[in-house]
Amino acid sequence: MPVDLNKLLQGDPRAIARAITCIENDRENSARILKTIFPHTGHAFVVGVTGAPGSGKSTLVDRLARFYLNGQKKSVGIVAVDPTSPFTGGAILGDRIRMQNVALEEGIFIRSMATRGFLGGLSRATHDAVSILDAAHKEVILVETVGVGQDEIDVIKVAHVNLVLLVPGMGDDIQAIKAGIMEIADVFVINKADREGVERIEAQLLAMLSISPRPDGWVPPLVRTIATLNEGINPLAAAIESYARFAKDSALFIQKRRTHARERLLELLGEQLVGKVVHEHLENGLLDQYVELVASRQSDPYSVVDEIISGFCGETSQNRKGSGL
Amino acid sequence: MPVDLNKLLQGDPRAIARAITCIENDRENSARILKTIFPHTGHAFVVGVTGAPGSGKSTLVDRLARFYLNGQKKSVGIVAVDPTSPFTGGAILGDRIRMQNVALEEGIFIRSMATRGFLGGLSRATHDAVSILDAAHKEVILVETVGVGQDEIDVIKVAHVNLVLLVPGMGDDIQAIKAGIMEIADVFVINKADREGVERIEAQLLAMLSISPRPDGWVPPLVRTIATLNEGINPLAAAIESYARFAKDSALFIQKRRTHARERLLELLGEQLVGKVVHEHLENGLLDQYVELVASRQSDPYSVVDEIISGFCGETSQNRKGSGL
Repeated sequence: MPVDLNKLLQGDPRAIARAITCIENDRENSARILKTIFPHTGHAFVVGVTGAPGSGKSTLVDRLARFYLNGQKKSVGIVAVDPTSPFTGGAILGDRIRMQNVALEEGIFIRSMATRGFLGGLSRATHDAVSILDAAHKEVILVETVGVGQDEIDVIKVAHVNLVLLVPGMGDDIQAIKAGIMEIADVFVINKADREGVERIEAQLLAMLSISPRPDGWVPPLVRTIATLNEGINPLAAAIESYARFAKDSALFIQKRRTHARERLLELLGEQLVGKVVHEHLENGLLDQYVELVASRQSDPYSVVDEIISGFCGETSQNRKGSGL
Repeated sequence: MPVDLNKLLQGDPRAIARAITCIENDRENSARILKTIFPHTGHAFVVGVTGAPGSGKSTLVDRLARFYLNGQKKSVGIVAVDPTSPFTGGAILGDRIRMQNVALEEGIFIRSMATRGFLGGLSRATHDAVSILDAAHKEVILVETVGVGQDEIDVIKVAHVNLVLLVPGMGDDIQAIKAGIMEIADVFVINKADREGVERIEAQLLAMLSISPRPDGWVPPLVRTIATLNEGINPLAAAIESYARFAKDSALFIQKRRTHARERLLELLGEQLVGKVVHEHLENGLLDQYVELVASRQSDPYSVVDEIISGFCGETSQNRKGSGL
């Protein structure tokens, strides 16, 4: 099914859905789509939401989405990249009903990202999905991730503001806060704040923040929420807004965007190069033959890759000579 | 510091440590090391251990390591790929003492893998670390991972047997078992089995296993352990052994190894191609210029990558013509 770019730019949900399916599966068409929509992107405000399974992340995302939609009259897109989320269908007995409820609401588009396939990076696909929602005039895009794996952390580098959800008394408290997660938290959300231990986790967080302050001088606020009761959403939105204002003039934020652009570029470069080599040089079962060499332990992967690369470069050279270049 | 390959093959811990540091940081030398040691690999028995933070994974790995070392007189290597593990130093207030205790013991080598850097895949680095331990005559290699992210799941595809740890009453019980994790579990370990809810989680697992049986016909056994008390380790080792015997003749297992070889080959191909392009074609600040184009939104990453690739292919062609090819 071809992607109708005009409909996509008008925000048509089916066109958005098709475009995202395309970027997940079709290397050549996805490059074309992303190049075409590029001039229409750069307007959305992207919020990353990271939290362990059971932290109530999906419910919070749901509440925030309704806040922006109903309270601020903004169109909202949600990208869920969480193998444990009911959105992504990872949970086996999950309540999928909720997902449909949100999806049916006017002005909110939800998309769950499949775990990565042959075409490569989950974070590349998520970034591209955000670009598509951006081009489709979603004003606020929420990116939900479990944030434990490296891929999942890379995913939310696309965000302008990152929320990290914690729950009082869950696991080994502060032990559950990973170093990588600490670095990305612009706002801490203490969800399920009616549970015992809320003061304790806040005290631990404050202690950690005072031991290792952020290099940009920002002090991540701690916001209590009870997402199931829709409590604390207004103060949370205010905290998000206040970090966004701060980041606008922060030299470190700009540096962070540059680092992120570099990672994105190198990831995409790898994907496109592999796609090109496989497509142009390893057709007709040649890839399978190389795979068999490795699987049967006749050769090591490094030697096989060397052979593939020198074959490809030689071939490129000959093609170009042949075409008169 | 150069890697002494003879010492590595003799199992010298410092040579192993240096070799692993090298494969994490040095693209060209790592290829050389991996090619050289390849004929010495393929003998180790690799066990993957996956579990959520707080499931007692590190303690279990510790107990299993001692079982193989003291009970079976086998040399043991441990590769920890878990941002929340005290081994990897991800936990902020973690008890690092334990790690040293294990490391000091004769015959056990522990290595934690850093999250991936520029040189690429965590799973590539982990596989290479396993190869190094294999070449260094470690007979049993335990690979520990939190198993939530895609990278972390890819990591344990290197294993011959995969354990998935669950804890009674933790989180939303069965909800915490992700679809991806279910597929990789050859043996379920119910750790902290003295806790309430052990029958419940076992009943849930059995129900799930009967709803979706494995295509290879294997019925993953459920083994209760209390790792802190060293209870259940013998039955666990027996379950591991019994799956290993089953897998030996399983056509699906062989198919799985082939799929895994394919993924590994493509990942390595991407890494090596990017390394080659960056090293040979994007020197002298050219990469920074491209990054700036993307970061400042003057161009989209797809167009920039196209330009880089066509520049590289053209250059390769010219070099070859110039050199008389």
